[in-house]
Amino acid sequence: MFLSKSLVPILKNIPSEAKIKSHKLMLRTGMIKQSSAGIYSWLPLGFKIMKKIESIVRLEQDNIGVQEILMPTIQSSEIWKESGRYNDYGEEMLRIKDRQNREMLYGPTNEELITEIFRNSIKSYKSLPQLLYHIQWKFRDELRPRFGVMRCREFYMKDAYSFDLSIDEAIYSYNKFFLAYLKTFKKLDLSAIPMAADTGPIGGNLSHEFIIIAETGESKIYTDKRIFGVNYSDTVVDESSLSNLRTTYDEFYAVTDEKFDQNEFNEKVSDDNKLITKGIEVGHIFYFGDKYSKAMNASVDKDGKKEFVKMGSYGIGVSRLVAAIIEAKYDDKNEIMKWPINIAPYHCAILPQVSKNDKSNLEKSLNIYNYLKSKNIDAIIDDTDEGIIAKIKKFNLIGIPYQIVIGKNSTDEKFEFAKVGEDLQFLSTDEIENIIKKDLKN
Amino acid sequence: MFLSKSLVPILKNIPSEAKIKSHKLMLRTGMIKQSSAGIYSWLPLGFKIMKKIESIVRLEQDNIGVQEILMPTIQSSEIWKESGRYNDYGEEMLRIKDRQNREMLYGPTNEELITEIFRNSIKSYKSLPQLLYHIQWKFRDELRPRFGVMRCREFYMKDAYSFDLSIDEAIYSYNKFFLAYLKTFKKLDLSAIPMAADTGPIGGNLSHEFIIIAETGESKIYTDKRIFGVNYSDTVVDESSLSNLRTTYDEFYAVTDEKFDQNEFNEKVSDDNKLITKGIEVGHIFYFGDKYSKAMNASVDKDGKKEFVKMGSYGIGVSRLVAAIIEAKYDDKNEIMKWPINIAPYHCAILPQVSKNDKSNLEKSLNIYNYLKSKNIDAIIDDTDEGIIAKIKKFNLIGIPYQIVIGKNSTDEKFEFAKVGEDLQFLSTDEIENIIKKDLKN
Repeated sequence: MFLSKSLVPILKNIPSEAKIKSHKLMLRTGMIKQSSAGIYSWLPLGFKIMKKIESIVRLEQDNIGVQEILMPTIQSSEIWKESGRYNDYGEEMLRIKDRQNREMLYGPTNEELITEIFRNSIKSYKSLPQLLYHIQWKFRDELRPRFGVMRCREFYMKDAYSFDLSIDEAIYSYNKFFLAYLKTFKKLDLSAIPMAADTGPIGGNLSHEFIIIAETGESKIYTDKRIFGVNYSDTVVDESSLSNLRTTYDEFYAVTDEKFDQNEFNEKVSDDNKLITKGIEVGHIFYFGDKYSKAMNASVDKDGKKEFVKMGSYGIGVSRLVAAIIEAKYDDKNEIMKWPINIAPYHCAILPQVSKNDKSNLEKSLNIYNYLKSKNIDAIIDDTDEGIIAKIKKFNLIGIPYQIVIGKNSTDEKFEFAKVGEDLQFLSTDEIENIIKKDLKN
Repeated sequence: MFLSKSLVPILKNIPSEAKIKSHKLMLRTGMIKQSSAGIYSWLPLGFKIMKKIESIVRLEQDNIGVQEILMPTIQSSEIWKESGRYNDYGEEMLRIKDRQNREMLYGPTNEELITEIFRNSIKSYKSLPQLLYHIQWKFRDELRPRFGVMRCREFYMKDAYSFDLSIDEAIYSYNKFFLAYLKTFKKLDLSAIPMAADTGPIGGNLSHEFIIIAETGESKIYTDKRIFGVNYSDTVVDESSLSNLRTTYDEFYAVTDEKFDQNEFNEKVSDDNKLITKGIEVGHIFYFGDKYSKAMNASVDKDGKKEFVKMGSYGIGVSRLVAAIIEAKYDDKNEIMKWPINIAPYHCAILPQVSKNDKSNLEKSLNIYNYLKSKNIDAIIDDTDEGIIAKIKKFNLIGIPYQIVIGKNSTDEKFEFAKVGEDLQFLSTDEIENIIKKDLKN
């Protein structure tokens, strides 16, 4: 609650290795700290944001009926040999020998392990569909980890897996995640476009990347502007409603580099509607049929016949989203970050002018803090001895949505209050409470 | 909500490698699944329990003002060389070489990494105390992993660290955790005794283990029965109140094997009050002064003088607690488990008698399910075609606190209802709701 007692190590100088704005901002405001190349600790501010993002991701998985489990980080190489990916995966897989000299690895993804769990647990088609997810740390030993948590080695990911009897049912499962992802990103105040994508090392023939537009994005994207207008507020979790949603999206051209075809683009999109820009991948969904179930013998019994289950997998990079949201929302020219209030580390910053001989502003701050707390509004008091201008600048960077300034202009009833980066106005604590509460409800 | 659609793989035969009752029960009820020696996946039932335990552990850390952060699982060997523990730790440390041939390791504990974070972040004594915790997966490469999640290799742990200027302040921090631990275990419905303990590879000279009594425990314990009567309900988080609590506990003899002294035991405890039994360690706290801060140069500036900070560390095995609670609460003779309602995977099990031609009991179940859901009571319906007796036995094992049986004896208004392992009585949904609500409030 007091900044001076919090572990928020603000840096005056931005480390030179930070090239993109999210990496710079996260280091500068002490959200993360690198412990080795591509491996980070999450300090209180960054941790709070990541946990709130995780809760939103979780809720939308629960809403479509996915069951949460938790698989370990360390896996045996055996199942990867069964699927054939142990050799394919290459050096990005962190390979480990334990004290008994067994070949282990730090999971870069979990198709093999979940398939093993499935084949040992589910025998009858009556238990289908099985939709399962976990939120767990993964490791990919990038050759050149860079861009902070955007392309790091140890990262936090939600990965879900679906198991169905038929292709149609599997596509229904796929479409559930399609909707859940749109809703998740919307709750994070991001416009994510689902784009046809290559399946890469996961395999399969149907895949969408969810991409948010950002100048610093790594993927070049080609799309039809009208795709932003697709409305899914009436879509419900039933087969035809979801299928209609997919059809609506499929009408608009939207691909990344890998899938780009100039002729098709010209044919399908008028020049006025063409949008060529860069984006950041924040989610990726795959349907890959029986690629793993066949290789690993994961089947169910249907009328005495053995059927290999049809599978899909569905990922959201939770730690990466923290950086992606900064890329989308940080105004680096004016040095103002605006976290959506539902994932901001605090709802409000209280910035008193403090001097050695006069603690009255600190007392006022504490009163406001307690008042807001009683209304379930979470605030932090900057009790350091910096000047007001410096405090405002610092909290513009940290990006807490609201600021209350307690200085020579404030009276006993009215305080200077601002939405981050906007003008100050004199308001009572009641009025302040109402503004923040209204934002929290949206 | 329907058992048939949930990933709850009930085993008919208990795997022979399971020797203790928690391991047996967790495998039998599909709470966990081994993926390799000493490494487990947490399936929905086990996962829900572990997450609820984690929330209680977190809340009590937050209540004493500890800040939550998250350190990575993979650490660089460099900081362990600085502290001198890289060689000391032996083969239990999982050592890894990454693709650049750098020496890394899977953290078995975090004294080094947190000290590095501290020394790079905190410069002034004004920012003390710093109390920090994280809840993260750890790895210890046990030679003989056994007893399921009780002694496994990859485990989930809350570890906290304190940084203070003086020894007195450090002891105050230590005592805060002492109280937080008592409260945490009480909320889990466990009687944990704090016992003077050896410090082992962590180092230092002050340490307590928190031990719960269980016949299958690994530690032999010697104590004074009266220690269970110590009352800490009036203890508050201030220096003298906490110090008094410690003094009160210290009056009673309570040690494990390592610290046992027969003469001292005879002197301090009358024969009537002697208790010699076995226990399970569920928490461990350490004060170790400047052991790490000196070796790793973690200091603050006080009046121009460099002071090495005084540190402590504080662990609770979150995944281990799931097994420990089963050891304490599972009646394996009668095959009845009783989860405290605040950590049970569901509050209530609805057990309808289902036949091919008559779905009316299933409909009744769904109505009750929806009614309870509207009252924030979380139920699961066993919609399988097993008989009622089999369903009751299964849910006695799973340990959901309440059962509603929907069979030939139920009317439209009254249903057979029981606390797990107790007699059935006929009650209305209203009455059922009241009983469960009352339990939830306690």
